[in-house]
Amino acid sequence: MTHTVRDKQKLLARVRRIRGQVEAIERALESEADCERVMHLLASTRAAMGGLMAEVVEDHVRHHLVDAERHPGALDEDAAEQLLAIVRTYLK
Amino acid sequence: MTHTVRDKQKLLARVRRIRGQVEAIERALESEADCERVMHLLASTRAAMGGLMAEVVEDHVRHHLVDAERHPGALDEDAAEQLLAIVRTYLK
Amino acid sequence: MTHTVRDKQKLLARVRRIRGQVEAIERALESEADCERVMHLLASTRAAMGGLMAEVVEDHVRHHLVDAERHPGALDEDAAEQLLAIVRTYLK
Amino acid sequence: MTHTVRDKQKLLARVRRIRGQVEAIERALESEADCERVMHLLASTRAAMGGLMAEVVEDHVRHHLVDAERHPGALDEDAAEQLLAIVRTYLK
Repeated sequence: MTHTVRDKQKLLARVRRIRGQVEAIERALESEADCERVMHLLASTRAAMGGLMAEVVEDHVRHHLVDAERHPGALDEDAAEQLLAIVRTYLK
Repeated sequence: MTHTVRDKQKLLARVRRIRGQVEAIERALESEADCERVMHLLASTRAAMGGLMAEVVEDHVRHHLVDAERHPGALDEDAAEQLLAIVRTYLK
Repeated sequence: MTHTVRDKQKLLARVRRIRGQVEAIERALESEADCERVMHLLASTRAAMGGLMAEVVEDHVRHHLVDAERHPGALDEDAAEQLLAIVRTYLK
Repeated sequence: MTHTVRDKQKLLARVRRIRGQVEAIERALESEADCERVMHLLASTRAAMGGLMAEVVEDHVRHHLVDAERHPGALDEDAAEQLLAIVRTYLK
């Protein structure tokens, strides 16, 4: 799905950070850390997943809704940006 | 924003139903209904608002991302449907 | 469900503000305002409903989980505050 | 935070399943799977995290809000169940 090496690396860096966060939750549960700590780790991991989803959706909107080679300029940039602003709000 | 009289009527019917739900919350608070009832009314009203948002986003994706008169066939229907499936999941 | 006149007035003020926001969405749809405006109104109304739900949940946790007359001091204030912090994060 | 060996094992099993899901997202990105697949993996992982959070919150409500040894019977079971029903709805 990724479109440039740079995009791919950015998404991979995000998902690896999320994997690290999930491993921290696992360690917290294993060591019987208190509920509060586990709930905070979960909340921040979920927020990070929302951020990754927002980025994947952005990629999808910018690169897949319109084939830019066959239909150059067909995607309305303002309308796309309005959509993504709302998506980001809901994924926060 | 609406594109056909039918679309507009459908969205208006949804928002009026939501107004009725909010008025029911107001009455429940006024009559000191129990917490449980108020929480359920709030949860179902929020779900109805998610449904309205999903419909507005669908309208936006189908009609505004690409000007179909100037760029007929430019919007990839499959990619649009994939996006909307995800949006609906998150707005539920 | 409300426990003091002051609490009740605060919740009622919130729900009436939300009703006003829903009415603004209705007017925006009727006057065929653009999608962007409708999406923003919906997003801020949903946030306001999350705020109201957080307050109702807080009320519930503080007043209903433990009958303070029969079991004074039984509710662990720190644990309640940790729970509410997480609830607020998820309802934002 | 866990209260019995059984609870701990159940939570650990959940978090390990989530780690597996995050690793699947990582592999999908590495192999340049299509957007649709990545979005679905993300949505189901987020749902699984909501399920884990709901279980941790349940644990917190049942075991930490009231010290059952010092205040036996102080937690109102019905009120706790109403709260958890709402929490589960919002974490879905």
